[in-house]
Amino acid sequence: MAEYSIGVDLGGTNLRAAAIDAGGNILDKLSGTTALKAGRDAVLDDMIRSIRRLQAARGPEPLAGVGIGVPGFIEIEKGLIVGSNNLPEFDNFPVRDEIEKRLGTKVILENDANAAALGEKWMGAGREVNDLVMLTLGTGIGGGVICGGRVLHGFVGMAGELGHMTVVPNGNPCGCGNYGCLEKHASATAIVSMARLLSLGDNLSSEDVYKLAIAGDQRAKMIFRTMGTSLGIALATLINIFNYPLYLLSGGVLAAWDQFAPAMIAEIKLRSFTFRNTKTRIEKAMLGNEAGLYGAAALPFYS
Amino acid sequence: MAEYSIGVDLGGTNLRAAAIDAGGNILDKLSGTTALKAGRDAVLDDMIRSIRRLQAARGPEPLAGVGIGVPGFIEIEKGLIVGSNNLPEFDNFPVRDEIEKRLGTKVILENDANAAALGEKWMGAGREVNDLVMLTLGTGIGGGVICGGRVLHGFVGMAGELGHMTVVPNGNPCGCGNYGCLEKHASATAIVSMARLLSLGDNLSSEDVYKLAIAGDQRAKMIFRTMGTSLGIALATLINIFNYPLYLLSGGVLAAWDQFAPAMIAEIKLRSFTFRNTKTRIEKAMLGNEAGLYGAAALPFYS
Repeated sequence: MAEYSIGVDLGGTNLRAAAIDAGGNILDKLSGTTALKAGRDAVLDDMIRSIRRLQAARGPEPLAGVGIGVPGFIEIEKGLIVGSNNLPEFDNFPVRDEIEKRLGTKVILENDANAAALGEKWMGAGREVNDLVMLTLGTGIGGGVICGGRVLHGFVGMAGELGHMTVVPNGNPCGCGNYGCLEKHASATAIVSMARLLSLGDNLSSEDVYKLAIAGDQRAKMIFRTMGTSLGIALATLINIFNYPLYLLSGGVLAAWDQFAPAMIAEIKLRSFTFRNTKTRIEKAMLGNEAGLYGAAALPFYS
Repeated sequence: MAEYSIGVDLGGTNLRAAAIDAGGNILDKLSGTTALKAGRDAVLDDMIRSIRRLQAARGPEPLAGVGIGVPGFIEIEKGLIVGSNNLPEFDNFPVRDEIEKRLGTKVILENDANAAALGEKWMGAGREVNDLVMLTLGTGIGGGVICGGRVLHGFVGMAGELGHMTVVPNGNPCGCGNYGCLEKHASATAIVSMARLLSLGDNLSSEDVYKLAIAGDQRAKMIFRTMGTSLGIALATLINIFNYPLYLLSGGVLAAWDQFAPAMIAEIKLRSFTFRNTKTRIEKAMLGNEAGLYGAAALPFYS
């Protein structure tokens, strides 16, 4: 009778949960939408219900614990979300203790991008290394640093906020208070915003901009070059800081790799002596949307 | 009979060595100039002679090992210096193995700024934390990251090159190939260069510029504001990445703290949500020039 854990990926849009064994095999999986409009209690009830259903299906097998990945800054000792744009109702609410109390099980809270990085380390593109950095390029840009096989937390739990590295000192304003954050220059949102600035269209998605680029539109190509350059500035700095063997990119924007990667790699080569002189790898993550679920489930085993 | 180690700080100008016990007490110390003009072998002979003298003075006490801090990029497994502007004759020379062979003692090679950070963690301003980042503001800017009480090395040994973080994407060119490296905008050399650009004088040292600033010269004050701003951009990014409790500044430029710190702190506040929401400390290092010597001596005990 193998030990298993339950991972929960609580996003602003989707709520997913899975029972996964210590070997990383998904035993059971549930997904639905996050009932944000129905309020915090409804979301909590949904999470509890999902976890109980997965637990019931496993019968008497021993549950190692529950890991929950959430968007936003985390205070890890207190088990709090502090400052999440996607889950404002959870701000400063003791979500870990509340779920622990209702379930009677050990619960670990983690930032979703940190969880995704841990998932890739556990069962994805980072399996064979103990140290990696991952950037998730979506609506925003999430970051996660795996150091010695574990999530780098810092002293409060806010480490790995790589989307808020400054890449353009006088660049676009960010909700975090800064100017020129990586996520305002290299996320899907940034791509859409640049498309508007170039009068490519007001209602284009980042996928639409990508389609224009592969069809040969020079302005769309320029957007991906610009975005790749910003990403390269951030990656060069990360390589100079960490000298880790592996840097992974994930998220929806990854599909545009052929359009942004040449500018990204050129920028990294220019800006990092370490990159030019070591066998540093910049690669695509493997687990897609599942990375966060794997990582959340890995938390009871690796923290 | 207490165990002791020998730390060597091999700089482009000075060669210093000390015997230090496991409790961090300096038992004996030697210093001289680095005989670079006499060639690599003369420098090696000086190092060996210094180490043997310190060892002879300790008699039969057990030597834990020898740690050597050197400027430049390090390949830690091979024990090589690769790319040092200050010690070009040592490039790709197997310095660790050579000294080990001649002494018959375990030798550990480390980047000087990493060693200084470890020294401050061991016996200086970082004693009560296990995680810290240190920037040494001198002719260039060296960086060191202490993670869980040990030096962050990365997979080759080049981690912590914080002086080469990009802070001004189209800024001043750097010998490393990048533009806008922190060390080209916030080191003593950068201060002198800005003084020239502002026609303050062609032969001023950074101390002279500081004296002008405290005497009320507005251009000199502007230089320190500019330098503080660049430093703040880098520190904000480091805080967003690591969320460590302590960031230390060291080096000759530290004496100008009152002139650059206000702009530095303002910039960090602007650019780091994490700084604004946690009790992150930005402080002066304590050990001055001795940090590297302490850190080199700490290597046999903490690596």
